[in-house]
This record gives sequence, C-alpha cells and structure tokens, in this order.
Amino acid sequence: MPIFPAPRIQALLEEAFANAGTPRDIAGYVASSLVDSSLKGVDSHGVMRVVKYINEIESGWIHPDARPDVIQETGTMAVVRGNRGFGIHALGYAVDLAIEKVLANQVAAVGLVDTTHTGRLGWYGEKAAENNTMLIIAGGGHSGTATSGRWVAPYGGAERVLSTNPYVFGLPGGKFGSMVVDFATSAVGEGKLQIYRGEHKPLEPGWIQDREGHPSTNVEDFYAGGALLPMAGHKGYGLSVFAELLGSALLGTAHTMNWMVLALNISAFTPVTEYQQRAESFLQKLKVIHPAEGFKEVMFPGEPEAKSAKQRSIQGIVIPDETWESMKQAIQKVGVHTESMVSQEEKS
Amino acid sequence: MPIFPAPRIQALLEEAFANAGTPRDIAGYVASSLVDSSLKGVDSHGVMRVVKYINEIESGWIHPDARPDVIQETGTMAVVRGNRGFGIHALGYAVDLAIEKVLANQVAAVGLVDTTHTGRLGWYGEKAAENNTMLIIAGGGHSGTATSGRWVAPYGGAERVLSTNPYVFGLPGGKFGSMVVDFATSAVGEGKLQIYRGEHKPLEPGWIQDREGHPSTNVEDFYAGGALLPMAGHKGYGLSVFAELLGSALLGTAHTMNWMVLALNISAFTPVTEYQQRAESFLQKLKVIHPAEGFKEVMFPGEPEAKSAKQRSIQGIVIPDETWESMKQAIQKVGVHTESMVSQEEKS
Repeated sequence: MPIFPAPRIQALLEEAFANAGTPRDIAGYVASSLVDSSLKGVDSHGVMRVVKYINEIESGWIHPDARPDVIQETGTMAVVRGNRGFGIHALGYAVDLAIEKVLANQVAAVGLVDTTHTGRLGWYGEKAAENNTMLIIAGGGHSGTATSGRWVAPYGGAERVLSTNPYVFGLPGGKFGSMVVDFATSAVGEGKLQIYRGEHKPLEPGWIQDREGHPSTNVEDFYAGGALLPMAGHKGYGLSVFAELLGSALLGTAHTMNWMVLALNISAFTPVTEYQQRAESFLQKLKVIHPAEGFKEVMFPGEPEAKSAKQRSIQGIVIPDETWESMKQAIQKVGVHTESMVSQEEKS
Repeated sequence: MPIFPAPRIQALLEEAFANAGTPRDIAGYVASSLVDSSLKGVDSHGVMRVVKYINEIESGWIHPDARPDVIQETGTMAVVRGNRGFGIHALGYAVDLAIEKVLANQVAAVGLVDTTHTGRLGWYGEKAAENNTMLIIAGGGHSGTATSGRWVAPYGGAERVLSTNPYVFGLPGGKFGSMVVDFATSAVGEGKLQIYRGEHKPLEPGWIQDREGHPSTNVEDFYAGGALLPMAGHKGYGLSVFAELLGSALLGTAHTMNWMVLALNISAFTPVTEYQQRAESFLQKLKVIHPAEGFKEVMFPGEPEAKSAKQRSIQGIVIPDETWESMKQAIQKVGVHTESMVSQEEKS
C-alpha cells in the first residue's frame, strides 16, 4: 500500500480542487481538513473524500466556486448561507465568525444552511479550543429531504427517519491539548456496517434492527430496509430530535443538513491561565487511573486522534491500493498529474 | 399505599420548607418542582426528596434562607452564586436570568456555583421551551470534591472519578409540547442499582464494572468499590469530561457541582409561528411510524413524562408506605402536622 507524507498529498488535493474550479484559499482549506482527518486516523473523513467531492462537483451538487455569505446577523448571532460551496470551508467560516463574536460579546450562536458535506467535526472543536473558545455544534435537518442519509430509527420506531445527526463538544485542556468529542447520535455510523459487511462479521447487539423493527445482528437486515438504532436508547434519540429541530425548524426548511454553532469565550468567565491550571489539575487525575480490563491506559477525549497524528505525520499516510486507484482517477479527471506522486513505499 | 392529590402534597411540602426557615417564595418553588417530578413519574427527584432536603438543612449543608446573587454579569453572560441555598431555586433563577438575557441579546450563558441539589433538569428545559427558548444545561465539578457522588469511571479506567455529570437539552415542539431530554452521562444512575439490589436482579451488561475494572452484572461489585460505566462508551465519557471542565475549570474550583446554562432565543432566528409549523411537521413524521418490537408507539422526548403527569394529576400521587413514613417523620420534625393528610386511599 502506498504511503505519502502529509504535505505532498495535501498539495495534490489542493491542486485537484483548484483545477475543478475552487478558489485557491478554499481548495487549501478543504485539503487541510481532509489531510488532518487522515493524520488523526479518521480515514472515513480523510483524503479518500476527494473522490466523492470531485464526483459531487461533476454532478452539480457542490458548487466549487461558491463562497458563504451572511444572511442574518447581530453581535451575538448570525446565519451563514453556504450557497452549496464546500461544506468544510463554510462550517469553518461559521465557526470563525462565532469565535470572532465571542471576543466582543462572550457568547454566540451561528447557523449554517444550504451547504454540503462538512467533514470531520472534531476539526472545528480543536480550532475553537486553540482560541480558548468552548464550542458545541449540532447538525440536523435530513428529515425534510429525500431519503438519502435517513438511516436511523427513532427510539421505539420501526422506520428510518432520522439522519445520524452528529455533535461536537470542545474545550481546551491546557498542556494536555484540546478536549474534543464528536459523535453520531446513532449507535454506530453506516461506514462501520460497510466494514462488517465486507468481513462477513455479525454486528454487535444494539446497532441495528430489521425492516420490521426486530433487533438484529445481521448486517444484511440493515441493507434490506432496516435501520440504525440511536446511541444509548432514548438519550441518543433525544439528542437527535434536538439537532433535527435546530436544523429543520429553527434554521428553516432544510434541503440539506443544517448546522448550529454555539460558542463561548472562556476568558469572559475566568482568566485563561486559571482555567488552564484547573483543567490540567482535573485531567491529571484521569491520567493516573489504572486501566480497566482490555485497555492500556485512560485517554482524554481526542487523545487517540492526537496520538495517530503524531505517528502519521512522521510515518506518512497509508492509503490502501484500491482507494489510491480511485483517488488517482478522480484527480486525473480534473487534469492534475499524479505521476510525480511516487509513494515512500514504492521508492523504498 | 397512600395516594395524594398534587395540590395537597405541594402545600404540605411548602409548609415544611417554610417552617424549616425557607422564605415562602423559595419554599413554594422547590415544592412545585418536586411535585412536578412526581407527577411526571420521575419519583427519584420527586416529593420523597423532602426527607433528604430537611436532613441537609439540619446538617447545615443547605442554607434554607440563602438567596442566589449575581457575582459577574454582562448582557450575554452571568455567574450566579447559590450561597448553598436550595439548588432547585438557584438553578431556576439562573435559567430565568438566561431567558431574560436572550430576549435582548439572542444568546446567553449563565453559570451557577456554590449550590445544592438542583432537582430534575427536565423542569428547566420545559420552562425555557414554554418561553420559546432553546436550553442546554450541563453539570459537573465533583472531581474536585470529596468522594461523595464520584461514581463513574472514565472510559477505559478502573476507578471512580467522575460524577454522573448530567445534561438537559430542550426546545419547543409546537402543539406537541416541550421536546426535552435530560440524562446522566453514565450508563445508568445509581438509583437504578439500588432498585436492582433490592430485587436481587442481575444488572444489564455495560452498566458497571468491579473495583479492578472487570465488566460485571453483579450489583454488589459496584458497592464493593466498583464503578458505573459511561453511557455509549467514549461518547458519554467525552460529554462527562466536557461538563467537568465547565464545572471545575471554567466556573472555578468546585466545592459542589457547578452548572452551565446556555440559552438561545428562537425568535432571533425565525418567527416563532414558522418555527412551530416546521417543528410540528417534523414531529408528525415521528408520530406515524410503526412501533418497533417491544414498543407500543414512538414517543417524543419528554412524552412519557407528559403522559404520566396527565394521569397522576387526575389520579393523584402514589407514595409507598415506607417512603410516606419517612416523609411524615421529616415533616413533623420541622413542626408541621400531617394528621390532616388523610390520603384518598385511606378515605376510600
């Protein structure tokens, strides 16, 4: 399998998006987020997404040259319209706007509508934490669209109505880095089912039900019209309904997933140095705990990703052969040469 | 088992708190919340709490005559100090302040420190929703205290460090009422373990581990130094750490559980009537879904509580004999007569 240093694959993706009609700054921003996800070990939201994004540009879904604009604004809130440009850039824009607002007004809420795939949510939580800003993002609104992405049954229901309506929660953790947790409100994502399907493995109980609403561990029951179940039963269901109301009722009739960004300036409550000291003192207590059965150590929220990034930024990003083939095709389609991309592995 | 109409038990509790030195308005507010919890079927946070609260007044933990005050404030944020008065009243005060702030400034964050038990969190979510306000509350900070209430292991850890750090998320749902989900970030609350212990029943997998960090379904392993597990694994753990950072790092070194209230004015984003229409249109889709195996219908977040309240406000609140005995003792201790409290059942 080819292995690439992060800067080289980033340059390649930036070139591909730019060649497909994306302004250079947006192309670079999107490429950074994808490479960051791959470095952090979240391959599902990593560099392989270039294939999907270029297909979506070709199909007319993503408007590569669109820039977000602000359609409603006060000192503490805004609604950003993504104009169906790159969602990663649009949500980054909304988060930056929220961070700017909390500097002046302590707290802010920024909505994002009319956008496309927004990438890995942890990315935004980390950006905010680095700016001493608390961040919560919730995404919802698919219930108002066609069936695409509606995979999750409500708690106690036998049909797919909800999307995986995800959240991110982030705060700084002093010397321990950003404390960020992002998750789907379903028990698992559909991507995991694909992996189990490929490996012909039974699913864990509580992940899916069949089309009649019977619990199942057979992945084929999902693809025959079954549904993902909410995480933690009624709790995940409640979070999903909350996100859906934000996306489809508060931010308007959704044609896409809509997003709500909530931000808070830490220094409005306490001096940042004091916050950091107290955060570190709490986090230190977690670090010294003996591991439970099956674990090597207690990790912070976001620590597995940080560990992966440390390793992969040295060793490079491994891309499975098949994935690299489809990436090459997509990239060549927009007129970018990949011949110069000899991987470290191929060289050695 | 005695059964009481809600207004009678409410008057009795108000009288008891007032006799114990609580100003009449606070006594009435706390009694309302407890009775509301009992009506809604959340008995663990209901009228039986009078026993604990009167004990805590006697022990000096609750200062019955203390009123909250605001120690830090801007147009969009505040920190409320509860002065160890009744926590239910103090958190209600913080929520009311947040609702007031979002009327002028769209978004607000209000912290609450130095408080006592805050009752059922859904109560505040419902109040906010009735005022067309989105509400999120997170509670944390026990890690900085003595061991009391530290029952939950971090994901992958073998020791109790975290509290059940709970959340509430609430939004209005138009004609369907408030959509409110409140939950502990542990897989279950400790109260549930007590019930299983009493019934000598094995626990469900994923609820607890023993003191060495091995998974267990034997409730005695918890009471022998084991721990509650986080809900949904790393997701619930991440939410717990986030709440703990808010409580113990942002809002200061916690001597008690601290609370962060985030609020948003719906009408700042969209006319309320439009919000309601779109919310109803989404919620209607949930309502018509066929139930899954083992369920009678799909319910909204908060609907089981609303159904219980409808029934119990007619039929009365049933109190088990033993609970009623200890309630009578506590109430008589503060000089309130309970002889006139003949229950409906005893009369019939």
